[in-house]
Amino acid sequence: MFDVTRYAAAADTIIAAGRFLYGQGWSPATSSNYSARIDEHHVAITVSGRHKGELGAGDVMVVDLEGRPVQSECKSSAETLLHTVLYDIFPDVGAVLHTHSVNATVLSRLLPPGTPLKLEGYELQKAFSGVQSHESVLEIPVFDNTQDITALAEQTKAWFADHPEQPGYLIRGHGLYTWGKTMADCLRHVEAFEFLLECELETMRVRP
Amino acid sequence: MFDVTRYAAAADTIIAAGRFLYGQGWSPATSSNYSARIDEHHVAITVSGRHKGELGAGDVMVVDLEGRPVQSECKSSAETLLHTVLYDIFPDVGAVLHTHSVNATVLSRLLPPGTPLKLEGYELQKAFSGVQSHESVLEIPVFDNTQDITALAEQTKAWFADHPEQPGYLIRGHGLYTWGKTMADCLRHVEAFEFLLECELETMRVRP
Amino acid sequence: MFDVTRYAAAADTIIAAGRFLYGQGWSPATSSNYSARIDEHHVAITVSGRHKGELGAGDVMVVDLEGRPVQSECKSSAETLLHTVLYDIFPDVGAVLHTHSVNATVLSRLLPPGTPLKLEGYELQKAFSGVQSHESVLEIPVFDNTQDITALAEQTKAWFADHPEQPGYLIRGHGLYTWGKTMADCLRHVEAFEFLLECELETMRVRP
Amino acid sequence: MFDVTRYAAAADTIIAAGRFLYGQGWSPATSSNYSARIDEHHVAITVSGRHKGELGAGDVMVVDLEGRPVQSECKSSAETLLHTVLYDIFPDVGAVLHTHSVNATVLSRLLPPGTPLKLEGYELQKAFSGVQSHESVLEIPVFDNTQDITALAEQTKAWFADHPEQPGYLIRGHGLYTWGKTMADCLRHVEAFEFLLECELETMRVRP
Repeated sequence: MFDVTRYAAAADTIIAAGRFLYGQGWSPATSSNYSARIDEHHVAITVSGRHKGELGAGDVMVVDLEGRPVQSECKSSAETLLHTVLYDIFPDVGAVLHTHSVNATVLSRLLPPGTPLKLEGYELQKAFSGVQSHESVLEIPVFDNTQDITALAEQTKAWFADHPEQPGYLIRGHGLYTWGKTMADCLRHVEAFEFLLECELETMRVRP
Repeated sequence: MFDVTRYAAAADTIIAAGRFLYGQGWSPATSSNYSARIDEHHVAITVSGRHKGELGAGDVMVVDLEGRPVQSECKSSAETLLHTVLYDIFPDVGAVLHTHSVNATVLSRLLPPGTPLKLEGYELQKAFSGVQSHESVLEIPVFDNTQDITALAEQTKAWFADHPEQPGYLIRGHGLYTWGKTMADCLRHVEAFEFLLECELETMRVRP
Repeated sequence: MFDVTRYAAAADTIIAAGRFLYGQGWSPATSSNYSARIDEHHVAITVSGRHKGELGAGDVMVVDLEGRPVQSECKSSAETLLHTVLYDIFPDVGAVLHTHSVNATVLSRLLPPGTPLKLEGYELQKAFSGVQSHESVLEIPVFDNTQDITALAEQTKAWFADHPEQPGYLIRGHGLYTWGKTMADCLRHVEAFEFLLECELETMRVRP
Repeated sequence: MFDVTRYAAAADTIIAAGRFLYGQGWSPATSSNYSARIDEHHVAITVSGRHKGELGAGDVMVVDLEGRPVQSECKSSAETLLHTVLYDIFPDVGAVLHTHSVNATVLSRLLPPGTPLKLEGYELQKAFSGVQSHESVLEIPVFDNTQDITALAEQTKAWFADHPEQPGYLIRGHGLYTWGKTMADCLRHVEAFEFLLECELETMRVRP
């Protein structure tokens, strides 16, 4: 059983995030999924296939950390497990956002398989929690896309158990996952990632 | 004779679609035309030459499936037949949108004549009705532009009778046609197409 | 003497145009100037140096066709004569817009001196009054930039007396001039030009 | 002691500037910092780490020209000294804006170390106070990024004492600093810089 008021508050942060992210063009065509922690065992998450710029209370449901619906007959996103593993391994994660921008899609397809995205020398890296200097190096892993989400969830779980300090990852031809203690932190991470992906791609345009 | 309330409801979806599509920059300078099915024999469609971001009820008229005005002295879009053939061959099509983005225009001019646009490996392909995996291949035909719309209508009719599963097509230097069971489905298809066209063009920018 | 109500109506169209054009990013940093005809001898035009997204009634003044202020102590745009020659040679011109987009600036600098911008094969060419087919060719002249506006005004006057059918011109590193019978026509021309300039530049990006 | 009404008025201009600059995408992910002069010895400046599109009165504090908080327990931006040296050496500066756009970030990384950004032949250079012609040359210095702000403040102070006519500078991989007599002047400078940076980068895209 979860606290309904905490669920409603979590749903509100998801609805507002959707309006912002869709408006930025980062969640087109009913793509993307968002979640926010309710308590140790429950997560509020978007229902599958909804328009992300027009979310209402009926578009957010509750799942447990194994991704099973709680008090709901709705179907959560096919990628629910990619959210729940993060809540499971990082007790202080309060929100997870998966977005679908052109820049994340194109850049993740252009990087050679097995190569992480390396970010270095950008002042904006300091937008990620715990980063103090532009001289740090962020290595963002790029996982191959698959429709077998259970396998990908295991893969990301293993990777992030070993790299707890990294703030997000890409799936090739698909999009970005990032998280934070609060929804505000998580949105700041999305903005920082999108900025840095745009910088990297822009640099490749000019120096192909 | 058509049901006037169904006409008014169809016109409303067209007006709202125009506000969105113009705001995205996909219907500039009075270009584009939009339609929505009223019943088996009638279609609501935009009057020729109107500002697509400022459509009102007086900018939407009714035509039959041969493209002839019904109870109206207005002139519908010069491309009316490209809409009506789709309603004719696909009984479950409820809306058709023709848009005019920079990306559709440029990409359709860059592809060699006779070559379709091939889309593969994008998670967002799943936004098209019936597509289950990013591993599917979408082949979007590119027709040569012409002012002889009757001939082009025949050409598209023949092509889509043979390829009922494809969700849209391009006209070279001109724009995109796509459709769906409802206006919401059709708008999702436009968003998905525009996203994928942007990805393709962006990739060509970086890897010319 | 001019009709004050007609002046006020002309000023309203200028103010609304400014809000739109600034919002599109085509009139940044107090650049650009706009005008609308009041009668055979008078034109409403923006006062020099005003924020184009925040124009009010006090930012529009009246000049005669020699560019002299009428009933005003304000200073009109330094480029007033580029507007008034158009009203002078084309009696049916009702509005002139000069905008300052990145695309117009960059493209006009990239074209070799003496070379017009050639537009051909775009369906959107039909947005220009009098153009019936994408197979027409539009040759847009590019004048060298200068701070000697009197000389440039003479140059454009001579050119357009010989080419009355062309819908606009570029000034190198500076921007676009276009006009129309009404402000709505003129705004449609700006949108069509910006679309086509973007297409041309985008093509050069992909095929450098 | 400073006049509280002047502080409140300065804070208002900062809050409005933030809404605009964030909306343009030039201050993402809590980056950037803004200030406005209160009097000869005091400056209103943004508190560290706040969302720049959602600033309220509680997000603006007062510092003296040595960058020390006045009547506040908040922490001002880590880059406060980069603001205060400008108020110190230029008595007529009324506002300083530091922004963080993709274009400023990418372009400053692409320029070889030690090379200023040269702007020439753009009509929009006239948007900078004191510039009369597109034939002028603006040389914008690019300082290396550092977390040692005291050292960078000294460096900029020395440079601008020698080059009082230049309207701004870049920090590599970091962003833009510009200033003006009023906040309106300063915002015009930001818009002009962003326009010119976009033009330069766009030209490099087409002619790599």
